[in-house]
Amino acid sequence: MTRNDVTELVVFNRMKKGITWASLAEACGKSVPWTTSALLGQHQMSKEMAQAAGAMLDLPDDAVMLLQHVPYKGTGSIPVGQTVPTDPLIYRFYEMVMVYGSTYKELIHEEFGDGIMSAIDFDMEFGRQADPNGDRVKITLTGKYLKYKQF
Amino acid sequence: MTRNDVTELVVFNRMKKGITWASLAEACGKSVPWTTSALLGQHQMSKEMAQAAGAMLDLPDDAVMLLQHVPYKGTGSIPVGQTVPTDPLIYRFYEMVMVYGSTYKELIHEEFGDGIMSAIDFDMEFGRQADPNGDRVKITLTGKYLKYKQF
Amino acid sequence: MTRNDVTELVVFNRMKKGITWASLAEACGKSVPWTTSALLGQHQMSKEMAQAAGAMLDLPDDAVMLLQHVPYKGTGSIPVGQTVPTDPLIYRFYEMVMVYGSTYKELIHEEFGDGIMSAIDFDMEFGRQADPNGDRVKITLTGKYLKYKQF
Amino acid sequence: MTRNDVTELVVFNRMKKGITWASLAEACGKSVPWTTSALLGQHQMSKEMAQAAGAMLDLPDDAVMLLQHVPYKGTGSIPVGQTVPTDPLIYRFYEMVMVYGSTYKELIHEEFGDGIMSAIDFDMEFGRQADPNGDRVKITLTGKYLKYKQF
Amino acid sequence: MTRNDVTELVVFNRMKKGITWASLAEACGKSVPWTTSALLGQHQMSKEMAQAAGAMLDLPDDAVMLLQHVPYKGTGSIPVGQTVPTDPLIYRFYEMVMVYGSTYKELIHEEFGDGIMSAIDFDMEFGRQADPNGDRVKITLTGKYLKYKQF
Amino acid sequence: MTRNDVTELVVFNRMKKGITWASLAEACGKSVPWTTSALLGQHQMSKEMAQAAGAMLDLPDDAVMLLQHVPYKGTGSIPVGQTVPTDPLIYRFYEMVMVYGSTYKELIHEEFGDGIMSAIDFDMEFGRQADPNGDRVKITLTGKYLKYKQF
Amino acid sequence: MTRNDVTELVVFNRMKKGITWASLAEACGKSVPWTTSALLGQHQMSKEMAQAAGAMLDLPDDAVMLLQHVPYKGTGSIPVGQTVPTDPLIYRFYEMVMVYGSTYKELIHEEFGDGIMSAIDFDMEFGRQADPNGDRVKITLTGKYLKYKQF
Amino acid sequence: MTRNDVTELVVFNRMKKGITWASLAEACGKSVPWTTSALLGQHQMSKEMAQAAGAMLDLPDDAVMLLQHVPYKGTGSIPVGQTVPTDPLIYRFYEMVMVYGSTYKELIHEEFGDGIMSAIDFDMEFGRQADPNGDRVKITLTGKYLKYKQF
Amino acid sequence: MTRNDVTELVVFNRMKKGITWASLAEACGKSVPWTTSALLGQHQMSKEMAQAAGAMLDLPDDAVMLLQHVPYKGTGSIPVGQTVPTDPLIYRFYEMVMVYGSTYKELIHEEFGDGIMSAIDFDMEFGRQADPNGDRVKITLTGKYLKYKQF
Amino acid sequence: MTRNDVTELVVFNRMKKGITWASLAEACGKSVPWTTSALLGQHQMSKEMAQAAGAMLDLPDDAVMLLQHVPYKGTGSIPVGQTVPTDPLIYRFYEMVMVYGSTYKELIHEEFGDGIMSAIDFDMEFGRQADPNGDRVKITLTGKYLKYKQF
Repeated sequence: MTRNDVTELVVFNRMKKGITWASLAEACGKSVPWTTSALLGQHQMSKEMAQAAGAMLDLPDDAVMLLQHVPYKGTGSIPVGQTVPTDPLIYRFYEMVMVYGSTYKELIHEEFGDGIMSAIDFDMEFGRQADPNGDRVKITLTGKYLKYKQF
Repeated sequence: MTRNDVTELVVFNRMKKGITWASLAEACGKSVPWTTSALLGQHQMSKEMAQAAGAMLDLPDDAVMLLQHVPYKGTGSIPVGQTVPTDPLIYRFYEMVMVYGSTYKELIHEEFGDGIMSAIDFDMEFGRQADPNGDRVKITLTGKYLKYKQF
Repeated sequence: MTRNDVTELVVFNRMKKGITWASLAEACGKSVPWTTSALLGQHQMSKEMAQAAGAMLDLPDDAVMLLQHVPYKGTGSIPVGQTVPTDPLIYRFYEMVMVYGSTYKELIHEEFGDGIMSAIDFDMEFGRQADPNGDRVKITLTGKYLKYKQF
Repeated sequence: MTRNDVTELVVFNRMKKGITWASLAEACGKSVPWTTSALLGQHQMSKEMAQAAGAMLDLPDDAVMLLQHVPYKGTGSIPVGQTVPTDPLIYRFYEMVMVYGSTYKELIHEEFGDGIMSAIDFDMEFGRQADPNGDRVKITLTGKYLKYKQF
Repeated sequence: MTRNDVTELVVFNRMKKGITWASLAEACGKSVPWTTSALLGQHQMSKEMAQAAGAMLDLPDDAVMLLQHVPYKGTGSIPVGQTVPTDPLIYRFYEMVMVYGSTYKELIHEEFGDGIMSAIDFDMEFGRQADPNGDRVKITLTGKYLKYKQF
Repeated sequence: MTRNDVTELVVFNRMKKGITWASLAEACGKSVPWTTSALLGQHQMSKEMAQAAGAMLDLPDDAVMLLQHVPYKGTGSIPVGQTVPTDPLIYRFYEMVMVYGSTYKELIHEEFGDGIMSAIDFDMEFGRQADPNGDRVKITLTGKYLKYKQF
Repeated sequence: MTRNDVTELVVFNRMKKGITWASLAEACGKSVPWTTSALLGQHQMSKEMAQAAGAMLDLPDDAVMLLQHVPYKGTGSIPVGQTVPTDPLIYRFYEMVMVYGSTYKELIHEEFGDGIMSAIDFDMEFGRQADPNGDRVKITLTGKYLKYKQF
Repeated sequence: MTRNDVTELVVFNRMKKGITWASLAEACGKSVPWTTSALLGQHQMSKEMAQAAGAMLDLPDDAVMLLQHVPYKGTGSIPVGQTVPTDPLIYRFYEMVMVYGSTYKELIHEEFGDGIMSAIDFDMEFGRQADPNGDRVKITLTGKYLKYKQF
Repeated sequence: MTRNDVTELVVFNRMKKGITWASLAEACGKSVPWTTSALLGQHQMSKEMAQAAGAMLDLPDDAVMLLQHVPYKGTGSIPVGQTVPTDPLIYRFYEMVMVYGSTYKELIHEEFGDGIMSAIDFDMEFGRQADPNGDRVKITLTGKYLKYKQF
Repeated sequence: MTRNDVTELVVFNRMKKGITWASLAEACGKSVPWTTSALLGQHQMSKEMAQAAGAMLDLPDDAVMLLQHVPYKGTGSIPVGQTVPTDPLIYRFYEMVMVYGSTYKELIHEEFGDGIMSAIDFDMEFGRQADPNGDRVKITLTGKYLKYKQF
């Protein structure tokens, strides 16, 4: 059993049992985006979180064990073998898509249905967020939800 | 003269004259991120904006004319020939990096200096923003600013 | 069982039972192109549609369940790992080929046989279609059907 | 002077003189999409068409001469070196994007402004068009026009 | 069972039973090159041809059924994900290698043994072949057979 | 001056002066396909051939000198950086397209006009040609000429 | 059983049994980095080392045998099919990442947890190390450990 | 003048004037590796450093100005368009090669001559370096210098 | 069973039984390099050779049969999908690496152990070898054996 | 002036003046293959060699200076951006083609004319060469010269 097998089990069992990502996050005591990306293979879980998620999703013991180790990240939403920008600053934004892309997909579908967040009817704010541990870059994105037309 | 020549002129003259993106945005009457990405070749400007920016940056008439046409977008920050995800929802996030990646780079350097926004000491919020023209997906990202060490 | 397994089952059982895409569309109450692309893994079906298609195609329960979730799209007709245009407008046309390419293939073979739609003996009309929800771009393509020669 | 130089001249002079693709098509006696793609380097023009377009666009004699030869096609909208599907039927749709992609871009911007044709709020019809020279495949696409938001 | 499985079965059983492509072509009533490429997954067979080939090669019923449907072509001899020329005329020659490359390989090995057709000691003739259904381009290639040296 | 500069000069001057490839071949005393591909940068010419072609095409002395050296081949019709099959036998066919692809393009346009040789309405013969210097593989291809539709 | 299967077994059993790389290195009598990379498929082990590691990790006999043969290296951390620099000197640094990348990953996670070594808050020393068998290039890298934020 | 032009000037003038990287570092008051990579386009210099380097290397004013802005990094040693690992931890090591690869090349040639640092006769140490601003990962690499044989 | 399965069996059984390539070559009556590359899937064996090798390596009958057919070559040592030079002369050298690369690997490891042949401490001779069947190009390469350091 | 400009000058002037690589090697006091590859940009020359070659080839002073510095290697015969094998042993053979490919091309054309060294009518010997500085791997390749047919 590999970490990818665990991700496939999580995805399949969650759909079959009709469990939301929000309820999994609540059981793990973390935010919805973090819990979703952790279960999709992008973060290491504590023993408690892994057991809580495992119980809800009916995962076997080996899967619960694997959730507690650091995974090979970035494989959830971008095909293996992609080309990326060489500039380290711009690369970090690309890495966010690699690490959180499948999370965005799950959360938009859970909240809105079969559609996308527009990159055209879209705006962005940029600023500095003061922080005692070192100031942070803060970026806020909003984009209109577009529903896939049925015809 | 092509639109890429205009972008190179904008980048060079702005550095030489020591003008900030913020002052260019003020002159154009738009937000800083939008103005930056428009001048970097990602949006069409109105005649008034193009003339205001052209005056500050000493651009020739042909450059001011080209700022008023829709550019070939997405060439500012990702090398031509990249591979991207096939899923339309995840692709939109990748497209945002293509269209706004060089804008992020300029704004972080202007506000913070030679460094990056961390994708590790990083968090994210996700939610729905009600809107009479159709609800919007809202995503807020914060990441610690990391300064390049000199040694 | 993954969504790709469902697509393979749909393709194989449809051929084996000699069912047309048109009759599947009729059972689902949607157009032929939409139904074909949905069954090929590009759209989410309602419970009723999934059950109607599942009954005709003898699909197991898990497959019927998976038809009711949003799939990873765009994997039906273009090899994983392709390179695409960076301009968002031109990209949308490429995305249409990724999402509907296998649908075109099935429908042309069902209607005409083993051959192609010519891109040489080809013409195109372009225009605006007024619409109360926002005007639409309308593009009409015709190309001569070319039969594969047997020799 | 190469055929690509001619395309750059056409693009630049047309913008500078404020001439529409529609008026160029009228002068050449062909449809707007065909004339646009011919001038963008995808088709061979007759002597009369080349001279009419050359006069409106102030092209030098060598450019008018080059418009009358068959160009290397498909370089207008897709980066050199792309990967494409191997199936001949699906490839033809990809080739249409290579040959006509920059034409779609010009015509949508001329008719609607800075925005795109949606591939999400999108539908498609498929059918057979009887023709004494051999029946044709007919495909009609409509997609909502989405305007780029300014912010 | 997929169409690729059928190709692998055809290749393996033909070698095991020591049947030539020529005898398969005779049983199907088509030329050797066409029959070879059809069995290698590049063309649709009629019911009679599929049954004749299936009987000689001991293929199961599902394989005989799949031989009667249009395959995804061009996957026989070129690795998935290749880059190809953008010019439609030159592309057609590349497509011929994709569709018929494995056929060339089988036929040269059957007729000559373990070796190749030289592209160096090579010549070519080019001309027009009159045809009431439209004239044809005719190209004749000859290249010296080079045997792989054993040492 | 590089060998590529010579090819561009040949292409441009030939069009400007309205000289056919056939008349160049006659002046050089070689077949039309060989002469065309030699002038397009795929073969070494003798001094006599280079001078004859140089006189008709008004080439400068350095160009005539470069025609007499072995060029870097295969760059005429396939973008640099392509992916090719690993099997040596199939690769030779791909190499023929690399070396002779631009020759096919010129000769079809000279003989037929703006169109292509069909790979669909296409057939092929395969056989052995006895030869005292070693038998040759002989392949004959015919494909219907398809004219680009004007609309 | 292939060498990759052995690597997967090593990775899985080590996690399941909670054994550290340091204790495996001690049992093998080699340094921690060398032992880690050898077990991950980058070096050949002696019989004694392979048996010691096999005993701790409960590996079957075939796996212990395979640990004693030279593996295909460089497949541990970089996707197959990558593009690399052509200069031999720079390439050696890239090869070090290919051969030791997965070792770095394991050792940083074992020593620090779920995080990375910064390439921004980073410095480097370069010098010559005298050696009777030929002087050595010595490079020392330090980078701040950055912990993945949970949110 | 772009930042790449500055790098080419630095490289050429340094060779022509016979200046070492070490003396440039001394003039700038920074370490040799940092100064080398900054001049090769990987870091932002202060005004004083840029003027000191500019004076030694005879750089024009625009070049001295450009040295004081943050460059697009990572383009010095790896071809544009490379493929990189998706795991963020391993990626940082790859990024170090992109940012410092050309620096390694210059420093090894300056100290040792025309040769390389071996990745075969190579060893590595790994450990934790305590630091009040957060502990650091420390990696020490040594590899035998191999001289290019002349023959 | 495919030809690749045969190669994996050959590799695994040879290691398990501790048989050298040299003894396999002796049994087959061919040179060591030819026999190694034939067994690794690059050449066709005669019935006698296939049976001799099959007996020593305990291969099943189907494997012995497959050894007697011409394989798809060049897949032994280079990842599928590589990019190669377009010049036919240089390509032949690349093809030698594709066809014989895994043979070099086996023979160097058998003769020397875990290490490489240096391309730095390396020299080469070039010349003509007279031959009644046509003169041959002769190239002799020597490179120092470098042992992988254990640490 | 860059090192690539020097290579182009060397190539052009050598052809124009009709100088052989052998006479250049004699003037430099090194073997023909080494001198050829050094002049083509793969090695560093001493002052004496650079001046001797510069005098014969009429090179300007900057070119003679650049010949005395270590070049970026491996760019002479393989397109930038190629994909290579990950195994270090096999990679060295690939690197030999990158570094010496253009040398092979020049030497074969100088000795034999417009043709290639066959990789089919080809054999190879492999062995150990004792050496007091460490034993060497010795590989001898011979392949029939094949002349390009004129037709």
